[in-house]
Amino acid sequence: MAYELHYWPGIQGRGEFVRLSLEAAGAEYVDVARGEGGLEAMRHFLEHPSVQRPPFASPFLVDGSLVIGQTAAILLYLGPRLRLVPASLADRLWVHQIQLTIADLVQEVHDLHHPIANALYYDDQKDSALRRSEDFRRNRLPKFLAWFEAVLARNARNARRTVPRLVGARLSYADLSLFQVVDGLLYALPEASGRALRKTPLVAALHAGVGAERRVAQYLASERRLPFNEEGIFRHYPELDG
Amino acid sequence: MAYELHYWPGIQGRGEFVRLSLEAAGAEYVDVARGEGGLEAMRHFLEHPSVQRPPFASPFLVDGSLVIGQTAAILLYLGPRLRLVPASLADRLWVHQIQLTIADLVQEVHDLHHPIANALYYDDQKDSALRRSEDFRRNRLPKFLAWFEAVLARNARNARRTVPRLVGARLSYADLSLFQVVDGLLYALPEASGRALRKTPLVAALHAGVGAERRVAQYLASERRLPFNEEGIFRHYPELDG
Repeated sequence: MAYELHYWPGIQGRGEFVRLSLEAAGAEYVDVARGEGGLEAMRHFLEHPSVQRPPFASPFLVDGSLVIGQTAAILLYLGPRLRLVPASLADRLWVHQIQLTIADLVQEVHDLHHPIANALYYDDQKDSALRRSEDFRRNRLPKFLAWFEAVLARNARNARRTVPRLVGARLSYADLSLFQVVDGLLYALPEASGRALRKTPLVAALHAGVGAERRVAQYLASERRLPFNEEGIFRHYPELDG
Repeated sequence: MAYELHYWPGIQGRGEFVRLSLEAAGAEYVDVARGEGGLEAMRHFLEHPSVQRPPFASPFLVDGSLVIGQTAAILLYLGPRLRLVPASLADRLWVHQIQLTIADLVQEVHDLHHPIANALYYDDQKDSALRRSEDFRRNRLPKFLAWFEAVLARNARNARRTVPRLVGARLSYADLSLFQVVDGLLYALPEASGRALRKTPLVAALHAGVGAERRVAQYLASERRLPFNEEGIFRHYPELDG
């Protein structure tokens, strides 16, 4: 049976991390909320008292009787099923740890434009956003990228590869997620991200290489890939790019 | 061999979620950074180029050759070993999903006093903090607590229990983590948290009940339990309590 992915239909958002793994593995899935009546189905799982284990928020995955929320937990579940993690416990924990660190970065990128509250418009928190983004560009972005660079540099299996992997020699869901974060950063903060990526060539090579994987490239060129926009996590507000 | 926990010695912080699970299970562990030379050991794992899989930040757990960062990943690893998760995959994923949602709440609590940057003092971001905490008290705190309440209410195994559990009938690491978040909220925002908890009696009962578990109570009364303070995640700044 096809996996059901439930996520807001107009944005890439956090759903995109799940979508990329499903697409890269060639898995059958339904992007429920983008079909007819799909938003009602999503609201059912989030809000109806008959749902025994309700997700706190979207995205969530439905696989038979299982309902799994939290992007990293979804990928933890899908990883072995989609062959997007190595076999050993140590490797799987390491992939998950990297995914959780990517999730932290994603949250910080979100908070660049919403440092005060999701319930407020960007314009009503712009002063705070300007200050937050200054710190992000100066401290946080280089720190995160330097960590990913170190992870790539210390993976011995990358010695002979042109496209480096975060863990082991095969594509993992963490590689796909790092691709997505870098892609989003290049959209949202092209100046700052371009500068930072020149200092982390392995991260840049991973981004280019993962985007060129056959199934990923096909997906990115398809209508299933929504464009970035100013409703999602990665928003291009030039004033935040310094 | 004893588990090694590495975390900043002066605060409960994120390390406390790991500590509580280790203590509740009666596991042998060393709180490395609180011993002599312990901060150097911690810095080694975070900074030395010879570490093949460096954690991004503390806390991290060392178990033999395994080094695991990210609180939720540490608990994912420890859960089965400490008998703090049920046996089935579905239940384990659900516990993990709850833990990740608790982690999101913890991040929001942290950002109450640091909405702009960790690199700045609280006083230099107080205006933003006041606005953020207003939204948190009004929208986010009730939303999170209502979700935990729903999870507790929908766990059929709680029908005959005085102390409810989040998943199944036995104590899980998610129960311990929810205890800790509520404990921290009551310290940081006693007014707002007290008000919110009156509407979520099962969450309040879990907090009281978990704190009274024999090993947990012993730990809380010991010197190993650091007091809350204004260096950690949960800080009592009365102006943020509304």
